[in-house]
Amino acid sequence: MRMYDLIMKKRNGFALTTEEIDFMVKEYTAGSIPDYQMSAMMMAVYFQGMTGEETAALTMAMAHSGDMLDLSAIDGIKVDKHSTGGVGDKTSIALTPMVAACGIKIAKMSGRGLGHTGGTIDKLESFQGFTTGISSVQFMKQVNDIGISIMGQTLDIAPADKKLYALRDVTATVDNLSLIASSIMSKKLASGADAIVLDVKTGSGAFMKKEEDAFALAKEMVMLGNHAGRKTIAVVTDMDQPLGLAVGNALEVKEAIETLQGKGPQDFVKLCMTLGAQMLIAGGRAENEAQAEAMLAGVIEDGSALGKLAEFVKAQGGDAAAVYDTSLLPKASIVEEILSEEEGYLEKLVCDEVGICALLLGGGRETKESEIDLSVGLVLHKKAGDYVKKGESLASIHANDAGKLAAAKERFLKACFFGESKPVQSSFIRGIVR
Amino acid sequence: MRMYDLIMKKRNGFALTTEEIDFMVKEYTAGSIPDYQMSAMMMAVYFQGMTGEETAALTMAMAHSGDMLDLSAIDGIKVDKHSTGGVGDKTSIALTPMVAACGIKIAKMSGRGLGHTGGTIDKLESFQGFTTGISSVQFMKQVNDIGISIMGQTLDIAPADKKLYALRDVTATVDNLSLIASSIMSKKLASGADAIVLDVKTGSGAFMKKEEDAFALAKEMVMLGNHAGRKTIAVVTDMDQPLGLAVGNALEVKEAIETLQGKGPQDFVKLCMTLGAQMLIAGGRAENEAQAEAMLAGVIEDGSALGKLAEFVKAQGGDAAAVYDTSLLPKASIVEEILSEEEGYLEKLVCDEVGICALLLGGGRETKESEIDLSVGLVLHKKAGDYVKKGESLASIHANDAGKLAAAKERFLKACFFGESKPVQSSFIRGIVR
Repeated sequence: MRMYDLIMKKRNGFALTTEEIDFMVKEYTAGSIPDYQMSAMMMAVYFQGMTGEETAALTMAMAHSGDMLDLSAIDGIKVDKHSTGGVGDKTSIALTPMVAACGIKIAKMSGRGLGHTGGTIDKLESFQGFTTGISSVQFMKQVNDIGISIMGQTLDIAPADKKLYALRDVTATVDNLSLIASSIMSKKLASGADAIVLDVKTGSGAFMKKEEDAFALAKEMVMLGNHAGRKTIAVVTDMDQPLGLAVGNALEVKEAIETLQGKGPQDFVKLCMTLGAQMLIAGGRAENEAQAEAMLAGVIEDGSALGKLAEFVKAQGGDAAAVYDTSLLPKASIVEEILSEEEGYLEKLVCDEVGICALLLGGGRETKESEIDLSVGLVLHKKAGDYVKKGESLASIHANDAGKLAAAKERFLKACFFGESKPVQSSFIRGIVR
Repeated sequence: MRMYDLIMKKRNGFALTTEEIDFMVKEYTAGSIPDYQMSAMMMAVYFQGMTGEETAALTMAMAHSGDMLDLSAIDGIKVDKHSTGGVGDKTSIALTPMVAACGIKIAKMSGRGLGHTGGTIDKLESFQGFTTGISSVQFMKQVNDIGISIMGQTLDIAPADKKLYALRDVTATVDNLSLIASSIMSKKLASGADAIVLDVKTGSGAFMKKEEDAFALAKEMVMLGNHAGRKTIAVVTDMDQPLGLAVGNALEVKEAIETLQGKGPQDFVKLCMTLGAQMLIAGGRAENEAQAEAMLAGVIEDGSALGKLAEFVKAQGGDAAAVYDTSLLPKASIVEEILSEEEGYLEKLVCDEVGICALLLGGGRETKESEIDLSVGLVLHKKAGDYVKKGESLASIHANDAGKLAAAKERFLKACFFGESKPVQSSFIRGIVR
């Protein structure tokens, strides 16, 4: 088998066989197929597409290119959750204790953030002493004992995807549905959960700007997950503006805790209830949404979800006291209000720009090596659709450096667009794909 | 300027500017754009195509990527000739002395063969002592003195094309009209002639199998040549079976000499007359085809074309006596007839297969380092359309090794296809593009 022939075949519009895709992924990962042939192949795929069978084969080949996490030592159904990413996305921190409190096993690997969207691990490190640097054995034991653990990506998960994604990133071959879907799903499949619930974001702050593209990606991923024998459900949700009100690591943790106390912002609560319900259904703990949502409301009401977060933080070395007293979380030295210079309906709050404000304050990583400041960020007081008077506060800004604060403030004001009439809001949950 | 953005632009169907193409070619040649980005670009070009302006810009950028041969020290109009290659193509050896004898200046760079199609330099080395390893100064002086010289490719001609072609060759991005045309024309433009006559082959033994593709390539190259201020004419000719009767280095030289003696095979004579006429017109020596063909017939009739070949061979150190006594050319030790095992009309003589027979005999290079045997090859006695009786000779095979002879013979017989009715022959000259 020669890579040249495979490129030619794909270029000419034919589907590759599973054997051909296995060969390609294996030899590319091993370094015996050069980057210049793979990038030509990726561009041919961009133009000719891949069938469902090809995409499934690519996903499986990449999933098997490195370690496959075996979670069979954990009793019960393990449900994983994945979000395609966005600004203010603290979902894992509130949602996983909620579903764990309902009896679902959460055995999750998570990453650090890069760019203006934060990573779950960074956020969790707002609890002093918290670590995700635990062994697989400790990880499994903890899930069996308390039902929840999140560990860092220490294993060699889907190295083929890692190498291929880096190549696609510099050759303008990222935005192909099959390639995006197989990239995400190869990592999820290698991570070992029995069921997977996907949060596919859509809107200006999401990778998939258009709703129809988000649905197409959701369908593709659900197909891939089910094809691999994992029950997979995708929820398409809004990312046209930041999720919830808090943007910034410790500020988001605080918001997640408030949500577990029943005081979360409306959109974020809705998201946790919707994703949580699907996780309970996928994990066989509930029969339908109504039952699942009642269970989730129950664990918030009786404090067991908050208790589960405390248990989880403590098990991984963190200061669980902060769960009950959020003033113990990292705090910025300067808190200033951003006052509106205009009056009218807030028509648009440019999502990526708000993320960049947090980055400018020092709350994100510009490169892999950057140190991040957990305490900084923004807390929105107004969201799209709200009426704002001149001089009213749009957001609180939390900073440790006056210069950075000024830069972030200026940028934030430019991210706000006002209008005379109340903008039409799309529903926050766009749909569910099974 | 970033290569990533250029790939994206082309991928999305937009035309690149001349500045963008210049940047891309310059930085790729310098090694600062990696192969994996260029191969993705080439695949995007394969799908999105290039406009005439883009193709012209690419051609000029590649032509200027290395040495540009300056032929201004040579008096008169210098006309170059290029063939897209085929089996039995000894055209340069007969044609260049013909047109030189008519007063056109021939200052040509030529290459060695690779694979089953021989190179002009290899063929010329059938004259003992002949060398193309001459300096530019000697080359210019010889053209001024006797009107003709062929030198090896010692200069760094179009290195961008060389690098790019090697990449396209392994990434299935060769067969795009704009890329093929710019590859050929960049080298021709860098080679310095005032006018260029192109022989674009079509048929089973040509790169362009379909006549319409050959015409499209011809038009593109004529556009590129004229755009660069060189008078350019293309002739589309048949390569459905080998050209002439001889295939193999010394055997082809012998046939070229016979052609200059007025005894050449019909198709080959026709080709030399047609290309020669266009060269005389392009070089301003004749006003029309009739006048040009009369001049060419004259230099064969009076022996001056043959004399010019002798002069040329002698000037470059070769044994010119062989021009007048072809028995002095390299001779194989075994000559055997290939007798037909069938009876009927020879319907098809698979061109590439006949070339491979010569390669099997040792007459071609399998790799760049191969030594070639100048004496071996085949002389056809029958061509497509001829009636063949059982036991009649199809061809003479010239070999130095009984084993290789047997292998070539077997392969040759498989390349002959017979039928009951006389096949319809297309005209040999398919058309002229100006």
